[in-house]
Amino acid sequence: MDTGGKQVTGGGDRAVVVFSGGQDSTTCLFWAVNRYDEVRAVTFSYSQVHGREIECARTIAEKAGVEHETIPLEIFKHLNLSSLVQGGEPVEHSPLPDTFVPGRNILFLAYTAAAAYKAGIRDIVTGVSQVDYSGYPDCREETIRSLERTLVLGMDYPFRIVTPLIHLSKAETVKLARAEGCFDMLAFTHTCYRGAYPPCGECKACILRAKGFREVGEKDPLLEAL
Amino acid sequence: MDTGGKQVTGGGDRAVVVFSGGQDSTTCLFWAVNRYDEVRAVTFSYSQVHGREIECARTIAEKAGVEHETIPLEIFKHLNLSSLVQGGEPVEHSPLPDTFVPGRNILFLAYTAAAAYKAGIRDIVTGVSQVDYSGYPDCREETIRSLERTLVLGMDYPFRIVTPLIHLSKAETVKLARAEGCFDMLAFTHTCYRGAYPPCGECKACILRAKGFREVGEKDPLLEAL
Repeated sequence: MDTGGKQVTGGGDRAVVVFSGGQDSTTCLFWAVNRYDEVRAVTFSYSQVHGREIECARTIAEKAGVEHETIPLEIFKHLNLSSLVQGGEPVEHSPLPDTFVPGRNILFLAYTAAAAYKAGIRDIVTGVSQVDYSGYPDCREETIRSLERTLVLGMDYPFRIVTPLIHLSKAETVKLARAEGCFDMLAFTHTCYRGAYPPCGECKACILRAKGFREVGEKDPLLEAL
Repeated sequence: MDTGGKQVTGGGDRAVVVFSGGQDSTTCLFWAVNRYDEVRAVTFSYSQVHGREIECARTIAEKAGVEHETIPLEIFKHLNLSSLVQGGEPVEHSPLPDTFVPGRNILFLAYTAAAAYKAGIRDIVTGVSQVDYSGYPDCREETIRSLERTLVLGMDYPFRIVTPLIHLSKAETVKLARAEGCFDMLAFTHTCYRGAYPPCGECKACILRAKGFREVGEKDPLLEAL
């Protein structure tokens, strides 16, 4: 279990999970529930094409018995950025994938930190991984550690950004879901970039998800439930 | 002139200024107009008590002949943070001033960076100062440099956060406004935390502003215009 080099202490601890309703953050949510005394989840609504995520997040948070909040964040729509945003378009000069939403994880984590600051919570859990990460620079450990330092300095508060999946492949994340007792919950998650249900099976996110299950010889409960 | 240790190059350069409509960012706006070929300004609307700032920002940007955009950012209202936000309240456990809005500058700069990324602009100008800074940790040079690194890493883009005022006192900022030829523009700025016009003269922001003018033996054009 990798927590970004940091020890999660038990007893009296609280955490906020950045929770999209996808496979990775669902695994993180249960990982956190198994380790902290109190867990809250925040989901950002940013006019994502795959808006189904938000409904998934609500359902899963309820099943996990976790306090859950959806925060509207219309800036990405305002900026008309990325093919993942309704009415948006990829940034022309960017060498990054057209699904890259510039600044997304930085803003999600900075917002979450402001909410955590208010609640007096220092641990922020996020499901980013620098393995199988689709080339998003904001999923790299170096970015996350730099952001952690920025948040600590900027609010004068001892935040820790906890990243259980940072060094895990999708296949290892599937195994982790088994270990954390939340494998069946993956039936309620959403991954498809096109926002389709049943999943399209063809977009980059669907392909990556399928590869993870295949590599560990598991059947995806989302597809089994259809 | 301090640009955070970085050289501003002339010719073909563009910049985005984080522009509140206050004294400091107005001075920065003209500082930028005098140095860059193209300047844009962004103002954030976050239900600030001193909403008059936004009208001031529009007026000044027009006088400066600068493209200006107001971006809604309702998160601080959502989080009910700080006495500076309508209906908000200071964070109880915070040792910082009750006007501290946790994460404000980090979010403003991260948003601005996402917009700059889209426009292919790398220089972001902000009027933060670590002198006379009211104890806000997000105005310190160390925070700003850490955020710059985070944005560079997180978007894989060579952003520079340019901070002309970082080592200037309010008095020195008044002198800078003279040097940049925008002293008279300070008549259109807003500073009062209570959102009052004429300014209340009693809040921390009004007192700090008055001290700056007094120290350099200048009369505040905002008060002269009344």
